[in-house]
Amino acid sequence: MIKVGIIGATGYAGGELVRLMMGHKDVEIVWYGSRSYIDKKYADIYQNMFKIVDAKCLDDNMEELAKQADVIFTATPQGFCASMVTEEILSQTKIIDLSADFRIKDVETYEKWYGITHKSPQFIGEAVYGLCEINREDVKKARLVANPGCYTTCSILTAYPLAKEGIIDMNTLIVDAKSGTSGAGRGAKVQNLFCEVNENMKAYGVATHRHTPEIEEQLGYASGEQVVINFTPHLVPMNRGILATEYASLKKDVTYEEVKAIYDQYYKDEIFIRVLEKDVYPETKWVEGSNYVDLNFKIDPRTKRIIMMGAIDNLVKGAAGQAVQNMNLMFGLPESEGLELVPMFP
Amino acid sequence: MIKVGIIGATGYAGGELVRLMMGHKDVEIVWYGSRSYIDKKYADIYQNMFKIVDAKCLDDNMEELAKQADVIFTATPQGFCASMVTEEILSQTKIIDLSADFRIKDVETYEKWYGITHKSPQFIGEAVYGLCEINREDVKKARLVANPGCYTTCSILTAYPLAKEGIIDMNTLIVDAKSGTSGAGRGAKVQNLFCEVNENMKAYGVATHRHTPEIEEQLGYASGEQVVINFTPHLVPMNRGILATEYASLKKDVTYEEVKAIYDQYYKDEIFIRVLEKDVYPETKWVEGSNYVDLNFKIDPRTKRIIMMGAIDNLVKGAAGQAVQNMNLMFGLPESEGLELVPMFP
Amino acid sequence: MIKVGIIGATGYAGGELVRLMMGHKDVEIVWYGSRSYIDKKYADIYQNMFKIVDAKCLDDNMEELAKQADVIFTATPQGFCASMVTEEILSQTKIIDLSADFRIKDVETYEKWYGITHKSPQFIGEAVYGLCEINREDVKKARLVANPGCYTTCSILTAYPLAKEGIIDMNTLIVDAKSGTSGAGRGAKVQNLFCEVNENMKAYGVATHRHTPEIEEQLGYASGEQVVINFTPHLVPMNRGILATEYASLKKDVTYEEVKAIYDQYYKDEIFIRVLEKDVYPETKWVEGSNYVDLNFKIDPRTKRIIMMGAIDNLVKGAAGQAVQNMNLMFGLPESEGLELVPMFP
Amino acid sequence: MIKVGIIGATGYAGGELVRLMMGHKDVEIVWYGSRSYIDKKYADIYQNMFKIVDAKCLDDNMEELAKQADVIFTATPQGFCASMVTEEILSQTKIIDLSADFRIKDVETYEKWYGITHKSPQFIGEAVYGLCEINREDVKKARLVANPGCYTTCSILTAYPLAKEGIIDMNTLIVDAKSGTSGAGRGAKVQNLFCEVNENMKAYGVATHRHTPEIEEQLGYASGEQVVINFTPHLVPMNRGILATEYASLKKDVTYEEVKAIYDQYYKDEIFIRVLEKDVYPETKWVEGSNYVDLNFKIDPRTKRIIMMGAIDNLVKGAAGQAVQNMNLMFGLPESEGLELVPMFP
Repeated sequence: MIKVGIIGATGYAGGELVRLMMGHKDVEIVWYGSRSYIDKKYADIYQNMFKIVDAKCLDDNMEELAKQADVIFTATPQGFCASMVTEEILSQTKIIDLSADFRIKDVETYEKWYGITHKSPQFIGEAVYGLCEINREDVKKARLVANPGCYTTCSILTAYPLAKEGIIDMNTLIVDAKSGTSGAGRGAKVQNLFCEVNENMKAYGVATHRHTPEIEEQLGYASGEQVVINFTPHLVPMNRGILATEYASLKKDVTYEEVKAIYDQYYKDEIFIRVLEKDVYPETKWVEGSNYVDLNFKIDPRTKRIIMMGAIDNLVKGAAGQAVQNMNLMFGLPESEGLELVPMFP
Repeated sequence: MIKVGIIGATGYAGGELVRLMMGHKDVEIVWYGSRSYIDKKYADIYQNMFKIVDAKCLDDNMEELAKQADVIFTATPQGFCASMVTEEILSQTKIIDLSADFRIKDVETYEKWYGITHKSPQFIGEAVYGLCEINREDVKKARLVANPGCYTTCSILTAYPLAKEGIIDMNTLIVDAKSGTSGAGRGAKVQNLFCEVNENMKAYGVATHRHTPEIEEQLGYASGEQVVINFTPHLVPMNRGILATEYASLKKDVTYEEVKAIYDQYYKDEIFIRVLEKDVYPETKWVEGSNYVDLNFKIDPRTKRIIMMGAIDNLVKGAAGQAVQNMNLMFGLPESEGLELVPMFP
Repeated sequence: MIKVGIIGATGYAGGELVRLMMGHKDVEIVWYGSRSYIDKKYADIYQNMFKIVDAKCLDDNMEELAKQADVIFTATPQGFCASMVTEEILSQTKIIDLSADFRIKDVETYEKWYGITHKSPQFIGEAVYGLCEINREDVKKARLVANPGCYTTCSILTAYPLAKEGIIDMNTLIVDAKSGTSGAGRGAKVQNLFCEVNENMKAYGVATHRHTPEIEEQLGYASGEQVVINFTPHLVPMNRGILATEYASLKKDVTYEEVKAIYDQYYKDEIFIRVLEKDVYPETKWVEGSNYVDLNFKIDPRTKRIIMMGAIDNLVKGAAGQAVQNMNLMFGLPESEGLELVPMFP
Repeated sequence: MIKVGIIGATGYAGGELVRLMMGHKDVEIVWYGSRSYIDKKYADIYQNMFKIVDAKCLDDNMEELAKQADVIFTATPQGFCASMVTEEILSQTKIIDLSADFRIKDVETYEKWYGITHKSPQFIGEAVYGLCEINREDVKKARLVANPGCYTTCSILTAYPLAKEGIIDMNTLIVDAKSGTSGAGRGAKVQNLFCEVNENMKAYGVATHRHTPEIEEQLGYASGEQVVINFTPHLVPMNRGILATEYASLKKDVTYEEVKAIYDQYYKDEIFIRVLEKDVYPETKWVEGSNYVDLNFKIDPRTKRIIMMGAIDNLVKGAAGQAVQNMNLMFGLPESEGLELVPMFP
């Protein structure tokens, strides 16, 4: 049994990690970290876990945790993981960081977009960007995995094959993304109250959202050029789900079949990526509760653009599910262990 | 492997059966019946099943199905199962009927409340009312199980121990129940359109809802007297979940501890029933996607009444999950096989 | 022009008061009180008011306000109005208090249910309970009006004619009420976050909710006897709307027509009460945004009970609309001035 | 009093017309046309109108209607108005057509995108595109007004000043729009059921939606060049509201202040257009129930693009409200008569 510790176990991503671990036959959670609820029963915070989880919440002692756990998941605010990780800790345990601390290779870019000083830049080099479908082999050998952001997972995987194959003009890429509200976290803020979100929709972080440089970096690697994009996130009145609608100019005339063949080439063996049938577009509900990414595209001959669309459950493939997928790779388990979740409908 | 056939596989309950079967290691679905979508790929109707289910929908040929399947689930409109079942079919296969056809022992009562003639009253006697927590032993031996209604499952289990122990005055029992909209089915009706249901709430079937006699019959068995109740269902703008709030006068002064002891006596070994801690009330979200029934109660010394509350996911414990639970019992499998679903939150 | 001051203008009820006042031709708001947002532009807090309201928020200075305003609305937490009101203030202005401070005539009852000491019991006697349909004449002469609670408005008006006419056994009355989430206010609490409320439903304050004694007192006046009821509120995932489902035993056999005649006798001239047609049940959406109360009932001959149902918009008839209705009466205006709001659908 | 006839009074746009007319002091509805509900009381179809509208639904007899009404609103499927309108009718009455029949000047374009033959192309020339803020003077003199589409109203007004002033490269314009579900109409379709829409989000009509040529035509007039855009509509789980997020490359370096000055130049006297303050983005809830268009923009110096955002209530400014605004202009009434609706929040 892999001994798992979670720091930030009472946030939404942390809660989802717990849910997934309960269905994973090779793991045991040894630490439910939650600074806000120390000594409270975990199931008192997440009543769905009543009679399932008996443990109490513990504090954020990463050094102690490193001794007890084979892997630590940090589902914490930006800056936490970077401020705690040390060589000693990494020599004792593995870390899968769900925050952005080790996602971006360029410290300056990180510090500019996140507005904080990076506390342990010395580990950025070794950290592996945990987008399994792209960095699978590196993840397997990693001690420290930077679990991708929710928007970025969806945005990157949707465009990746076409970026890699040079089909689209990267300078024209626009990502218009829409997210359910669990992405905003469980903090008590007026703007996230039911009555403020329900029957409402808005863009936010326009031209300034922190997931922008992460998408740019990864698609830059894919395309082999510097990528600068527009990324606009929107808040939608639903709990879960991200839909990314992406626009780019085609570099040359391509047919549906040609583009489909490229997607298939990259993804046909990917257990968690489903390229839908022609003219069937991704809907967030069809992946809810699962680790799937549903993708499709439409070529517009009038504008010579391609519209790419991707849908994920932001808490699963966009956070906890991908983290488990990374863990499976790091520990030599089947990649889909504990993740064979059938989407729930309705 | 148990070979399973589903008639009505494209309704919401049918879809949920498929979802649950995908996670059940001892079954294989051999027949996706759907009169409306014959020859269409099942995954074209329920896109969540893309790359999971490859089969096409078949028609409703119960005779043929009986030959191929070890058990048939009928998730069909009232009257269908009764009109199809024969001794020959029952000699070849088992049937778990999710409709009301075999739930009510008195044919007259059935015909009055449902407004249709019962086509095979000869099987009513042998049919077992599949509320596993109450009729477990009978279910194990049954050929024909009447899977309880969604409202009724919740309403009965919430009051059962107190009815059985004679704690409450059955003549005073009032069940005020609220349901998510999946209970209304997948038929294309104006009243179930998003814009009609969203931001809206209403009672319906007041004093006339068909689940009334089913609750009365079962609680009548429990209490040993004839039971006549008020049952009022309400439609709530959410997909899943039933909450039953039940009121009854106490026959004598009892303490919280005494009542809690009664609930525990009946349910402490039930894997799917969770009697919550004092003053924690059931919320539908805490059981969503799972087979749990969450229960609690509050004694009101001012009125000498007790308020009992129960929550279920109407598509799981209220339909497909309970059907699988019955199947497990009928085939000698562990009762929770394929049903160890952790509720999804948020 | 009536000069209006609002204390608590940035809560949901306060915001609704502002919305209604904008459509009221005889009033002018001179004071947007909001302790939390002093000196901020009101339209920065409620962006719907951009280009409509130019004013900034002011603090809670009731003495100053009394000099400037003809009427003060206190949409404030319990205890505030009682702690501020003085004879001097009441000699200068009228007060419509949307809190519970002056709703209950018995100080002890108030203090027991609300858990606070009443700071100005000397004004309880003169305060008029502002349920216009019942206390219209008293309201006209009042200096201090206690605007009824949202649940109570709906619960009382639904049962009032039958309580008054002695048709129902008051000892059997049970009120099962369901409310949209705006009733929980605009405070930043985890339990009211979108993801906690959406796709969820629960009872709360079971047998202990503070609106209970208010309903009991008013229905006690109506029936001429002491009334003790069960009142159970529920939280529903929608913004606005209260639905009350009320159960009581009939004292004698009555027909639909007889009961309908009683409702008509009390309400047929009431502009804001709509007794629906036979077997049409109230839906909250049909009154949304308006000051209407939609009512109906069903006699159940099986149980000899009557089920009464009422629906309101909790922010209009349940708070701000009723407050404006009271203001209209107090200032000799037509009762429906500014309140002829057509419900918005969908 | 202006005598108003409505054909299609029981669709959502028709229902909204009725709601608005009830608050318009200069009009009287003389004809509630609804082919599906002939002879039924209107308030039986839209229960919100109980005790407000007494009339019954009538059929679609446009000739008879022309005699009785000063203006006819056709809230009907594509093709209906074009198949009914004649010179005789237009000599007797005015028509405001909420369908697309007369929105597009080029018959071929209409027929290609809508897939139907235009039955009265002879009136296309005289029809005025009823986007009041742009064609105000022409609307005043019109007999036949083509009321703009919901997406188009929002999309055009959001980009119009910058298109007109040549600030943006029209070849780069991308409109990513999101709509509440009332835009899908009141037809009973599985895809619009509550359980299918709730907790879900999807793109539809990608690169093929019929509002595309309408936007292109109008922005073509504005910019003086042929415009070909990508327009992608999305379905969002809410009743009302459209949010358009529009992307375009800037033709030259401009500052926030310069762009703001352009928007102000065009819109500062427009009663229904609110250009928000810097970095405040439109939210659909802030305009709900009202005729407002809320707009703003963000310049992204990294990509040299501008992101423009606009929000409307699709049933008001996107349909019925704009139709009333057109009527006001056609009859010489103040443009905002009956439309001074304060957005409802929450």
